[in-house]
Amino acid sequence: MRWRTELRDSDPQAICDLVAATGFFTDDEVAIAGELATETLERGDAAGYRFVIAELRGRMTGYACFGPIPATASSYDLYWIAVHPKHQDAGLGRQLIEAAEEAARDAGATQMFVDTAGRSQYRPTRRFYERMGYHVEAELRDFFAPGDDKIIFAKRLNPATRH
Amino acid sequence: MRWRTELRDSDPQAICDLVAATGFFTDDEVAIAGELATETLERGDAAGYRFVIAELRGRMTGYACFGPIPATASSYDLYWIAVHPKHQDAGLGRQLIEAAEEAARDAGATQMFVDTAGRSQYRPTRRFYERMGYHVEAELRDFFAPGDDKIIFAKRLNPATRH
Repeated sequence: MRWRTELRDSDPQAICDLVAATGFFTDDEVAIAGELATETLERGDAAGYRFVIAELRGRMTGYACFGPIPATASSYDLYWIAVHPKHQDAGLGRQLIEAAEEAARDAGATQMFVDTAGRSQYRPTRRFYERMGYHVEAELRDFFAPGDDKIIFAKRLNPATRH
Repeated sequence: MRWRTELRDSDPQAICDLVAATGFFTDDEVAIAGELATETLERGDAAGYRFVIAELRGRMTGYACFGPIPATASSYDLYWIAVHPKHQDAGLGRQLIEAAEEAARDAGATQMFVDTAGRSQYRPTRRFYERMGYHVEAELRDFFAPGDDKIIFAKRLNPATRH
């Protein structure tokens, strides 16, 4: 597995393909995932997004997208994390999130937030964040739709816990 | 007092002047307030922002900016509400927020969210939202900076409570 943080011109499409392959996201969400990469290629760091990409024999197997939350001193948001179905259950998700946290911490982040949803489809996602040391910081009832809550997880990125 | 919801070309500057006059916001925040109006003049409804503007003798005395939260079915966000210092304590804030809620409800909104901060400068703001029927839906500790929490207020926009 190779790791990199610099985007290539082929990444927006590769990210869309990867995110679509998970079968987890809507077409709109797939498009948004690609747009964040396109915007970053166009605008660089000013876009506010950073990436960690894992590849195997030149194919993207997983990626995470994160960045500083505007108007905050040192809070970061994990916007996207996705692992190709062929490579799930191999600890890649853990490696991606740890790489994102490490990079954020190096950039001065003190806290990572991640938004997810309360409905049952997202149960494995919520379990994953809990295993990674995240806690439920807030629940916004009926945020996405009636009966569909937004769950905000958070994790302190303490320099002392650095490995 | 005259009310309108359609923006004019002079509004971005008038909004910046009004928001700056409150003495409550940073230069960056003032600029953002104006940009939302500029973006709306350029892109129309696609920008996702709606406005309620109050004027007296052609001068903007207060305004609210709100809109649907992307990726939600019927949740709205109150992005901005500001009243000129000369016109505060005259119930204008209440009229603005009620007009914003009414317009959002007519557009299908079932809930209004508003983000604010936990530090003491924002105590009158929090009291205002509580008086307007909002409750604290979530508190994100140290979100803006260590010791500076984000407080998310919410209010159900029940059609049955329509006045």
